[in-house]
Amino acid sequence: MRVSVIGGSSIDASEAETAESLGRVLAQRGHTIVCGGLGGVMEAVCRGAADAGGHTIGILPTDRRADANEYVDEAIATGLGHARNPLVVMNGDAVVAVDGGGGTLSELGFASVYDRPTAGIGTHEAAHVEAVETAEEAVEYVEREARAE
Amino acid sequence: MRVSVIGGSSIDASEAETAESLGRVLAQRGHTIVCGGLGGVMEAVCRGAADAGGHTIGILPTDRRADANEYVDEAIATGLGHARNPLVVMNGDAVVAVDGGGGTLSELGFASVYDRPTAGIGTHEAAHVEAVETAEEAVEYVEREARAE
Amino acid sequence: MRVSVIGGSSIDASEAETAESLGRVLAQRGHTIVCGGLGGVMEAVCRGAADAGGHTIGILPTDRRADANEYVDEAIATGLGHARNPLVVMNGDAVVAVDGGGGTLSELGFASVYDRPTAGIGTHEAAHVEAVETAEEAVEYVEREARAE
Amino acid sequence: MRVSVIGGSSIDASEAETAESLGRVLAQRGHTIVCGGLGGVMEAVCRGAADAGGHTIGILPTDRRADANEYVDEAIATGLGHARNPLVVMNGDAVVAVDGGGGTLSELGFASVYDRPTAGIGTHEAAHVEAVETAEEAVEYVEREARAE
Repeated sequence: MRVSVIGGSSIDASEAETAESLGRVLAQRGHTIVCGGLGGVMEAVCRGAADAGGHTIGILPTDRRADANEYVDEAIATGLGHARNPLVVMNGDAVVAVDGGGGTLSELGFASVYDRPTAGIGTHEAAHVEAVETAEEAVEYVEREARAE
Repeated sequence: MRVSVIGGSSIDASEAETAESLGRVLAQRGHTIVCGGLGGVMEAVCRGAADAGGHTIGILPTDRRADANEYVDEAIATGLGHARNPLVVMNGDAVVAVDGGGGTLSELGFASVYDRPTAGIGTHEAAHVEAVETAEEAVEYVEREARAE
Repeated sequence: MRVSVIGGSSIDASEAETAESLGRVLAQRGHTIVCGGLGGVMEAVCRGAADAGGHTIGILPTDRRADANEYVDEAIATGLGHARNPLVVMNGDAVVAVDGGGGTLSELGFASVYDRPTAGIGTHEAAHVEAVETAEEAVEYVEREARAE
Repeated sequence: MRVSVIGGSSIDASEAETAESLGRVLAQRGHTIVCGGLGGVMEAVCRGAADAGGHTIGILPTDRRADANEYVDEAIATGLGHARNPLVVMNGDAVVAVDGGGGTLSELGFASVYDRPTAGIGTHEAAHVEAVETAEEAVEYVEREARAE
C-alpha cells in the first residue's frame, strides 16, 4: 500500500534515525512512501526507503520538481504552498507522523478528515492518532488497521 | 481586524449558541468574520454577526457561491475541497475555534503555520491554542494578542 | 452581478485607460468587480471602480492580503500561485478580459469550463470570447448574456 | 523527460488513435507521460504508453486515486477540481495538446505561464503553440525545443 509519512522539516539526529528506519521498514515490506518531498523527516524517510530499494513520491509545495530531496523517485510539483498538505495525506492509505509542528498538525487533521489509520512517533496527541515508540510498531499498526478496513 | 472562526459543521444547541454569541461580540467590536461559509459553527457565527450588523466572508470548498449559508456577505467559491482550509486561516488576523473535528484540527495546524493568535472553546488542545470558556474571553484574548504583535 | 475582470499585469497607458474605464462603468451599473488583486489591468479596473464608488474583490496568488493593490476592498489571500486563476473566474457571473498573456489565456479557458459569458478587449481570440472595442460594449454584452441565462 | 499530454475528455475514434499513437511514441523514446488521469485523450495516451512499456503519471481532479484510468501507473489525487490543471502542466518539461475544450485551453495558458515548449494537434490556436499534424511531429518538436533550452 501507500503510506504517507509526515513530520518536521528540521529534526535532530535521533528523529532522523527514526524516520530513516521507518523508510527502510516500509520499503522492505513493499510499501510506497508518500511525503512532502523536502527536508527533515521527508528526506530521512526517503533515504531509508532508497537504501532498501523502495519507491517514494514527493508532493512539493513549490512549482519546481527540482526542489525535491535527492531520494524522491516521483517528484510532483504543486505550487500550492501549504495547501498541498491535504494532498500528501489523501495520496496514502495510511499515515505515520514523526515529530512535527504546525504543518504536521494540519496533516493529522486531514488524516482524520480522510479517515486514514494513523500512527504517531513523538508527535502531536489526538484521539485518532495511535501513539507508538518505534518505526516497527508504527508499520505494524497501520498495516493491521488498513487490512481491517 | 479580521477574525477567522472555525469549528464543526454539525453542532448541538449549546455550541450554536456559543458560536452565535461569538459572531455578535466580534461584530459589535468592529471585526470582520472569515469562515468556511457552510453550516454548523460557520452558519451560527455568521447569524450572530448579521444580527449585530457585522460583516462576514465565507470561503467555500465548492465552486458555487450559492452554497454559502444565508448570513454570508461575501461568498468566495474555491472548488478546492478541503484544500480551502488554509485559506480560511490565512485570511484572518486571529483565529477562534468552537468545537470541531478533523477539518478544524487541520485549521488549528495552519493557525500555527501562519502564526495567528488562537483561542479555542471546547475544541482540540494544542500548545498554541488558548483554551477559554466564553465568546467574550475568546475575543479579549485574540484582541490582546493581535495588538501585541 | 459580479464581473470578473482579467488581463495583463504589465500594461501600457491605453490599456490602463480601458481597464479604468471598465471599472468605472461596471461600478456605475452596480456590479461588483472580481479580479486577481495585483497590478496592471487588476489595479486599473479597481481604481476605476473606486472612483465611481464601486465594490472590488481581489483574489491573490500569495498568502498575504497586504499584497493587494490599494483599490481592492476585499482582499482574499490564497497562497495558491497560478492555481488561484480558476477562483477569479468562478467567483464572477461573467468575465471581461483586457489584453493579457498566458495567465489571462488560462482564465479564458476556465471561463469556458464554468460557462461564463465573456467579452474581450484586445485579448486572445477564442470561440466563446466576444471581441469588442470598448468598455461600454463589453459591459453591455455581458449584461445581456447573463440576463439571458 | 516528462511530457504533459492534455486534451479532451470525450473524443472520437480518430482523436483516440492520435492520442494512443502519441503515448506509444513518447514511451518508445523514453519519456514519462503526465496527464489528468481521466478518460478521453488522457486514457488513450496512457493506453498507448502502457502498450510500449512506458511510464505514466495521472494528476486527478478528485480526491480518490481509484478514479484514475487503468493505464495510469502513478495516480496522484488532488481534490482540487479544475485547479489541478496547472499541476498537469508544471509537472512536464514540455506539453502536447490533442483536441480539447475549455480545460485544455486553460492548460495551454499555463504552458505559456510556465514557458513549456508546446505542440498542438487539432487543438486551440495560440502564438506559443506549434500546430502539427501527427504524433511523431509533436514529439520531434518538443524534443528539439526542450533540448534547445
